Amino acid sequence: MEPGGTHPEGEEPLPEEITWIRDGQILFTYLHLAPMPELTRSLQARGAIAIAYETVERADGSLPLLTPMSEVAERLAVQEGTHYLGRAYGGRGILLSGIPGVPHGNVAILGAGTVGLNAAKVALGYGADVSLLDINLDRLRHADDIFGGRVVTIASNRFNVEQVVQRADLLVGAVLVAGARAPVRVTEAMVKSMKPGAVVVDVAVDQGGCVETIRPTTVVEPVYMAHGVVHYGVANMPALVPRTSTFGLTNATLPYALELANRGPLAAARANAELARGVNVWRGRVVHPAVAAAVGERALPLSELR
Amino acid sequence: MEPGGTHPEGEEPLPEEITWIRDGQILFTYLHLAPMPELTRSLQARGAIAIAYETVERADGSLPLLTPMSEVAERLAVQEGTHYLGRAYGGRGILLSGIPGVPHGNVAILGAGTVGLNAAKVALGYGADVSLLDINLDRLRHADDIFGGRVVTIASNRFNVEQVVQRADLLVGAVLVAGARAPVRVTEAMVKSMKPGAVVVDVAVDQGGCVETIRPTTVVEPVYMAHGVVHYGVANMPALVPRTSTFGLTNATLPYALELANRGPLAAARANAELARGVNVWRGRVVHPAVAAAVGERALPLSELR
Amino acid sequence: MEPGGTHPEGEEPLPEEITWIRDGQILFTYLHLAPMPELTRSLQARGAIAIAYETVERADGSLPLLTPMSEVAERLAVQEGTHYLGRAYGGRGILLSGIPGVPHGNVAILGAGTVGLNAAKVALGYGADVSLLDINLDRLRHADDIFGGRVVTIASNRFNVEQVVQRADLLVGAVLVAGARAPVRVTEAMVKSMKPGAVVVDVAVDQGGCVETIRPTTVVEPVYMAHGVVHYGVANMPALVPRTSTFGLTNATLPYALELANRGPLAAARANAELARGVNVWRGRVVHPAVAAAVGERALPLSELR
Amino acid sequence: MEPGGTHPEGEEPLPEEITWIRDGQILFTYLHLAPMPELTRSLQARGAIAIAYETVERADGSLPLLTPMSEVAERLAVQEGTHYLGRAYGGRGILLSGIPGVPHGNVAILGAGTVGLNAAKVALGYGADVSLLDINLDRLRHADDIFGGRVVTIASNRFNVEQVVQRADLLVGAVLVAGARAPVRVTEAMVKSMKPGAVVVDVAVDQGGCVETIRPTTVVEPVYMAHGVVHYGVANMPALVPRTSTFGLTNATLPYALELANRGPLAAARANAELARGVNVWRGRVVHPAVAAAVGERALPLSELR
Amino acid sequence: MEPGGTHPEGEEPLPEEITWIRDGQILFTYLHLAPMPELTRSLQARGAIAIAYETVERADGSLPLLTPMSEVAERLAVQEGTHYLGRAYGGRGILLSGIPGVPHGNVAILGAGTVGLNAAKVALGYGADVSLLDINLDRLRHADDIFGGRVVTIASNRFNVEQVVQRADLLVGAVLVAGARAPVRVTEAMVKSMKPGAVVVDVAVDQGGCVETIRPTTVVEPVYMAHGVVHYGVANMPALVPRTSTFGLTNATLPYALELANRGPLAAARANAELARGVNVWRGRVVHPAVAAAVGERALPLSELR
Amino acid sequence: MEPGGTHPEGEEPLPEEITWIRDGQILFTYLHLAPMPELTRSLQARGAIAIAYETVERADGSLPLLTPMSEVAERLAVQEGTHYLGRAYGGRGILLSGIPGVPHGNVAILGAGTVGLNAAKVALGYGADVSLLDINLDRLRHADDIFGGRVVTIASNRFNVEQVVQRADLLVGAVLVAGARAPVRVTEAMVKSMKPGAVVVDVAVDQGGCVETIRPTTVVEPVYMAHGVVHYGVANMPALVPRTSTFGLTNATLPYALELANRGPLAAARANAELARGVNVWRGRVVHPAVAAAVGERALPLSELR
Repeated sequence: MEPGGTHPEGEEPLPEEITWIRDGQILFTYLHLAPMPELTRSLQARGAIAIAYETVERADGSLPLLTPMSEVAERLAVQEGTHYLGRAYGGRGILLSGIPGVPHGNVAILGAGTVGLNAAKVALGYGADVSLLDINLDRLRHADDIFGGRVVTIASNRFNVEQVVQRADLLVGAVLVAGARAPVRVTEAMVKSMKPGAVVVDVAVDQGGCVETIRPTTVVEPVYMAHGVVHYGVANMPALVPRTSTFGLTNATLPYALELANRGPLAAARANAELARGVNVWRGRVVHPAVAAAVGERALPLSELR
Repeated sequence: MEPGGTHPEGEEPLPEEITWIRDGQILFTYLHLAPMPELTRSLQARGAIAIAYETVERADGSLPLLTPMSEVAERLAVQEGTHYLGRAYGGRGILLSGIPGVPHGNVAILGAGTVGLNAAKVALGYGADVSLLDINLDRLRHADDIFGGRVVTIASNRFNVEQVVQRADLLVGAVLVAGARAPVRVTEAMVKSMKPGAVVVDVAVDQGGCVETIRPTTVVEPVYMAHGVVHYGVANMPALVPRTSTFGLTNATLPYALELANRGPLAAARANAELARGVNVWRGRVVHPAVAAAVGERALPLSELR
Repeated sequence: MEPGGTHPEGEEPLPEEITWIRDGQILFTYLHLAPMPELTRSLQARGAIAIAYETVERADGSLPLLTPMSEVAERLAVQEGTHYLGRAYGGRGILLSGIPGVPHGNVAILGAGTVGLNAAKVALGYGADVSLLDINLDRLRHADDIFGGRVVTIASNRFNVEQVVQRADLLVGAVLVAGARAPVRVTEAMVKSMKPGAVVVDVAVDQGGCVETIRPTTVVEPVYMAHGVVHYGVANMPALVPRTSTFGLTNATLPYALELANRGPLAAARANAELARGVNVWRGRVVHPAVAAAVGERALPLSELR
Repeated sequence: MEPGGTHPEGEEPLPEEITWIRDGQILFTYLHLAPMPELTRSLQARGAIAIAYETVERADGSLPLLTPMSEVAERLAVQEGTHYLGRAYGGRGILLSGIPGVPHGNVAILGAGTVGLNAAKVALGYGADVSLLDINLDRLRHADDIFGGRVVTIASNRFNVEQVVQRADLLVGAVLVAGARAPVRVTEAMVKSMKPGAVVVDVAVDQGGCVETIRPTTVVEPVYMAHGVVHYGVANMPALVPRTSTFGLTNATLPYALELANRGPLAAARANAELARGVNVWRGRVVHPAVAAAVGERALPLSELR
Repeated sequence: MEPGGTHPEGEEPLPEEITWIRDGQILFTYLHLAPMPELTRSLQARGAIAIAYETVERADGSLPLLTPMSEVAERLAVQEGTHYLGRAYGGRGILLSGIPGVPHGNVAILGAGTVGLNAAKVALGYGADVSLLDINLDRLRHADDIFGGRVVTIASNRFNVEQVVQRADLLVGAVLVAGARAPVRVTEAMVKSMKPGAVVVDVAVDQGGCVETIRPTTVVEPVYMAHGVVHYGVANMPALVPRTSTFGLTNATLPYALELANRGPLAAARANAELARGVNVWRGRVVHPAVAAAVGERALPLSELR
Repeated sequence: MEPGGTHPEGEEPLPEEITWIRDGQILFTYLHLAPMPELTRSLQARGAIAIAYETVERADGSLPLLTPMSEVAERLAVQEGTHYLGRAYGGRGILLSGIPGVPHGNVAILGAGTVGLNAAKVALGYGADVSLLDINLDRLRHADDIFGGRVVTIASNRFNVEQVVQRADLLVGAVLVAGARAPVRVTEAMVKSMKPGAVVVDVAVDQGGCVETIRPTTVVEPVYMAHGVVHYGVANMPALVPRTSTFGLTNATLPYALELANRGPLAAARANAELARGVNVWRGRVVHPAVAAAVGERALPLSELR
């Protein structure tokens, strides 16, 4: 989830060849080089120093330059899902909060990690009846502490997921596993059992999704119908709110950029291990193992940067 | 604001002639006959008893069969306005709640009556910075009681409105005067001073609007740009959530319908003054003064119903 | 609901004859003379001035010396109902708040007047999922204002009551009509449809109850089973917490007692219309119309007190 | 605290001999074999694999299959204590929340660990004035963060405990030390100083209690009077709400049971150290050191399971 | 309570003679002419139209141009009282909120009208333990609704006031009777019983005070000691925050000022009865009865304004 | 920040020579010997055992006997800053909460550590509009979790600090670095840009302050003006509320004092590493390295205490 491609006409990918970068210049942005070997080679050929936001990594494995994008997506998931409950967009024609005399709608959130908790907070703010499921009871205990009984916590197992999916007006998939494909928790059969016009938003869509029937969409055509259910599969949600996303991202990248500018790339990479993990290409050599594998080269060890 | 026309393809107005109603049968629904004299005459010709939801009225002047629709619209106003802040729809690309490190967006609400208070509640639930303006200080005191300082209350005058409009990301017009054109509080010049991509939602659009540049739109094409500002002018917001709207409306109409069914229309109209005020056409005669004026007839007094 | 009979062994009613009161002395307490003509005659014979708490009445029809007892009962209803959900007492064996991973229990409250609102507040404090029903939509709007969406408000009609009763773990009857038998909203058939071990508490039991199967019980034997459902029918709930009840009652009666003591009964009754309405027997004559009818006498008009 | 013995007539202990289990079959439940050597020998004789819920243990020393029972007890402690404040049960006749004009009752909670914090949450929900004591100032800081000043935090020392006990209407003992006798914080002299009809609930009763005068009771006869104070000493509180307890326990045991079923006991015990710590008896040999000591045998090391 | 005299050097009263006003000019401000007959005569002599903020009055008897000053005072009372609890100023050396392990201080508020409720809100925000007393139980019920049990409501009588005063760290007198001397609720003997260094703030000081020992002070020397208790008697609290007070006052006066400017004084006084009640002197004649009495003239009836 | 010197006439420092202590006696209090070598030598000469509160230290580097003083200061900072916004004291004449129709004032807090979070809590309780800045985004995330969007979190950088300082009515400096000079975040130029009468409170003043223009003051003369801005620089805030401070400090010191009393100093220092780190002088020898350096001696290792 990254803020690039914010124009409504769709995202413009990085070109396969980069001609405007000069020897020793630094490219510090989202790169995703592994699936684009041509781009990697172009960067090598030009002698660039390419540092990828998405591989800057802390000692605890967290990815500080992905976090702000995740925060935007967590909050947008319920906002956009709520909008698509509108009948004009194929939804059930439900106002989540209800009105006096008409009960509120139900939001079921799979996964009580950071993403799920933030989605639950937003859904409560929207006045919904919120159920939160997780396999991990300790996470549910934490949710119970935070929400003080305003959220229904349910131990996640196949039986409980089936029950919950059937009564959801809005289903938010928030089961993410760091660095791996998201496990499928909601099968196609379960989606078929949903109420017509219910809405599914899967925050894990760019990791394959935890709902079997989800597939990536764009901010221009964000939803499609499947089995009578509205599917919202925007993989790049932050592009919808580029102003917020850009400030959020800059807050996170600025300290690294200052360090690069003030010390130069070599000293910065030596002093700051988080930044060093972000180095993908270095003056003709590929440094990041996965990117190196994609172009069939041996990765240059970080210790050999010069 | 009524729930008719809930299909996405647009609202289908009542036909100018009604052929399926028989002598003495009751038509109890939203009618709005004043601007449609042909329809009034058709109902007269067929001997129908036409009772209009919109003119059922309590002793205190409140309109109980419009209230549920108003409740839906109040809550949808912020929901939909928030959605259209998305860059893909012409908005500023702002997430109202912000994220940690990025301040929240500002929602300015003009009018602290029931509509404004409900909109403020929703906007707070969305995590926005909320300003609420009204000419009436007592209403602001009430708002301060309810929201305990979480909403900024501002005395409404031209200077303050100008200031507030300039900094709003989402501007909600909620200045309504019962039975009259809404007064214009936000001039075209003020709209020109707004930030590019700001969103205006005017809940008073079907009473002419309190924002000079607003004009009615439909759920199918809900927004248009003017002076770089997104205008949301859906006059029939409840049509977006027909399921909630219908339950809400039925909760309110059912007691009247039961009274009509159990007692017959004459006894019901005599026993229930609220219902009696709803009678527009009665077996060939026009009863409601405004409708009678529109067809150039003398209104039959309620006391002469037979 | 009055705090008399606070000893656990049961309530001791007033004796049919009162021998310790002397001519012109004032008896100011709960009396309920209408069904006890012997007691009325005894008070007449002794020349007493008998003023009944339960008939002291304000201009707006409210009964200020019953209010504190009602406040106690409203809050006890959920407290005691929750206790009897314990399996050892015949209940469903449910903890209302649930625990993390186990959803909370459901409390359905019929009637959104003062009693119902207070019961709802307590039930929320207990961590329950709360539904509140009323025929009057304005009351539900008020509840929605107060509870901000944490309580589900449902328009009360036969269909909705049936649905709600079936899923309730604890059903609180709070449909009271001032000075009249409570209307039956929950039929015996509905009670049969309840989950085994569900609990019914009917705050209106001393007005006949709004649940068909309820009958009065005492604090010593507070519950009985019917159709597998625990029925709590204590008509005199304040007797369970006499300390709180007594302070609450004294707060309300003291100003009247001081007025009687400082001015004497005649001047007090003339100066204070609320107190005057409390006069039942006055130096040999019966003053309160209902009590007079019960002993077959003509009521002495208040204006003729000497 | 375990959910067995849920019938009101009392808990039925496991028989001293188990005849229905066959060689190599798995018994996975609460066992408490140490004080029952006959039962241990019977399990050995039959070649059973006996795994005890109460000794399944995580690396951090926490006992995941006791936690749900503890969660139930924490929440029941205030609920049941509140009920027994009723005069009919020997209590002070206090409504914890008070009513307008009558101050609320005081709940003093000794111990601000998980148990005490949860009890404090419930007591606040009941509308009580809550004091929370602990020796550990950091725990009081955490409580202050959570409750934002709504709970009075008091440093625990003999002087402060004396003061607090004297003014408590409901005293909750929640001083637990993992795997050890609870320290006595409230002496018999302090209990004598309590107000007549005050209620003591000691959640640590099955570890000896932190109130000197507490002794274990059952759900059938839950309370006794001592020094004019109601003592609630149910050691097996979850038995009161078996439905909630069972779902809570099953949520926690199911993953272990599935692992046993899918892999077989040997592979499961090897793969899962938490489960391995639960093994008490293995095909004729005693594995758990404390159980082995009780029958005078040498414990089989986990590494020698076959 | 008015915002004049905002300079720290003290309040500058209106001069006894006004020389700069010309015939027929309007003086619209706080006047308080009754105790200043010389000033009245000076205004008469110059032919001025003098309209006093403090006598502008609504049909319900409320004084809209005093309300904003009252709102400021209500909120300042607790703020300033809290400051003077500082030991350096003679106070008890108490932090109202306490810290973890040290209980919070107690604020007792006499009077649960608007002033008392607002003071209670502020005191809760400061983290204090708050008691609220009133003779009127309905007001305490309202407070209980608003504060949901976070404030202790106590029926006001001599015994309860004595108890409460003894334990208060900060005592706020908020017993005001519109247009009359405030009744003394706290006697000098009660003040003597207070803890050394406790603080008294009496919002009713300019109506004589509801604490016997209070006397008016200024923002320059706001406090004095009496019986070891800090007395804060600033009668003109809004002068401490002139910026807030001025905006608040202008919000309230502007509509009247615009009406005077747009219509002229005669038409404005005829059209607006609230404004008319504010007229004190009119072109040589005294209009307001109390002011007329003070100069020994007959008041000109409003109907005779020309 | 320590509670000594609580008399309004100012703080009385420890004398340079201590004559009343005898050989082997324990002095356990705040000492701050490093800048007072004469005092150190006096303690050595008398053979005292001097243990300093300020150097008692836990394994994680936290200072448990400074924490209570810090807690007091955090809460006082906003309380006192708010008071000095009063016009009579040079402030802007602002009521932080505003009143209905007049917006609330702005409190900007630099630093979102424990100090900043507690200050933010207090400022919210005061009804202010609160902005919280920190360089560390994770701290802002935590603040966002706690305050749920009621506080504006802003990434701290020079540009943002400049913006925030300009609009602040009350600026709280809470940037502390354990054991080091506080970094200057607000330059003199920024202070010059503040609104006239704005107030600065710098909690870090005893570490040099994070506002360039702050200098230490006392509770007797707490504020001074600089560049039109009120500066509150009390370094010893707890002295203002000695009662709260003393209880808070005693709660923290008592366990150590008991250990010293029960075991004697040598055994206590050996058993309790936290206490051992507090030993500054031991029977003629200096133990704490910094104090030893100040008197030009070699520090006695803790292991050589006899």
